[in-house]
Amino acid sequence: MTATPHRRGADRTEAIMRATLELGQEIGYAKLSIEGVAARTGAGKHTIYRRWSSKGALLLDSLLSLHEPGLDYPATGDVIADLRTQIYAAVDLLAGPPFGPLFQALVGEAQHDRQLAAALNERFITPQADKTVARLRAARDQGQLSPDFDLDLAMAILSGPLYFQFLITQEPLTHGYVDRILAALFTGMGRRA
Amino acid sequence: MTATPHRRGADRTEAIMRATLELGQEIGYAKLSIEGVAARTGAGKHTIYRRWSSKGALLLDSLLSLHEPGLDYPATGDVIADLRTQIYAAVDLLAGPPFGPLFQALVGEAQHDRQLAAALNERFITPQADKTVARLRAARDQGQLSPDFDLDLAMAILSGPLYFQFLITQEPLTHGYVDRILAALFTGMGRRA
Repeated sequence: MTATPHRRGADRTEAIMRATLELGQEIGYAKLSIEGVAARTGAGKHTIYRRWSSKGALLLDSLLSLHEPGLDYPATGDVIADLRTQIYAAVDLLAGPPFGPLFQALVGEAQHDRQLAAALNERFITPQADKTVARLRAARDQGQLSPDFDLDLAMAILSGPLYFQFLITQEPLTHGYVDRILAALFTGMGRRA
Repeated sequence: MTATPHRRGADRTEAIMRATLELGQEIGYAKLSIEGVAARTGAGKHTIYRRWSSKGALLLDSLLSLHEPGLDYPATGDVIADLRTQIYAAVDLLAGPPFGPLFQALVGEAQHDRQLAAALNERFITPQADKTVARLRAARDQGQLSPDFDLDLAMAILSGPLYFQFLITQEPLTHGYVDRILAALFTGMGRRA
């Protein structure tokens, strides 16, 4: 019977994260509060604060609960097709609620909060970048990319223009734009025919 | 004698923007307030609000007062050298105070404030992007770039990775990184030898 308390804790954690996303979508990041999440779930405010030090930390975990399972790289042998599949999925996630607007708010908050910026990088950005680099490295090792192909820079060229559009110009992200970036990168950076 | 009131207005505007930058650098964006700027300059709070609807709007103008004269493109005939000169200057501006941290805070604020995001784009991002595209177009017209060179995408590839580093990974921006991006772009996107 020892599993029951753990399960109960996991259920409560899930309920709190689900309520965070629902409430965030309903009222926006600015009005979202740990108190509001506590009221909706019936959890004590202190219970939530014990696990999450701020609303940013709670939102980061809640967003990761939506995202983590979905964005692993396929490995069909065709590196461009695999990157396309993965980046389309990322763009679809960023383009719509609840993920898009709440993730945007979180990145905004990370400009004022070093601890949140570090957590965002450690938990979300770096693991994703590492997967992209690993997929590119496998292609390079298999001779599909030239030996001097700059893996880290390629990752930044795949990510940077999308984040620029998401955060700065705030125009909609489209699959067509992903296609243009992929074409520019692989026309230009030494792909072997 | 009609110039005197105008001049006095311009002096006061400059004093308010200078105080905004000084105070922002001293206490950070979070603690910066229009009330604080009013107190430092001796201007009335309502005088400031009459011209600037929010602290974000005031900070945007104050940052532009530092930036506007500096970042025009040189036109030596060598497009890569000209881009390098201009992007080095932009990176130097972003890398240090007062511009860097305050601009970062402003972009953070723009994730929560559509009006500020629109002003940031209209007053800062779009004019800069237009200049980059114009410099690239001139090079294309002169046959230094291939006829199908994608000017808008090139601009995004030059800007995106730098903003990604500035806002997301929050690592220092370096001239060396600019050089890598330029090399990737012009090796890969159809430059004629």
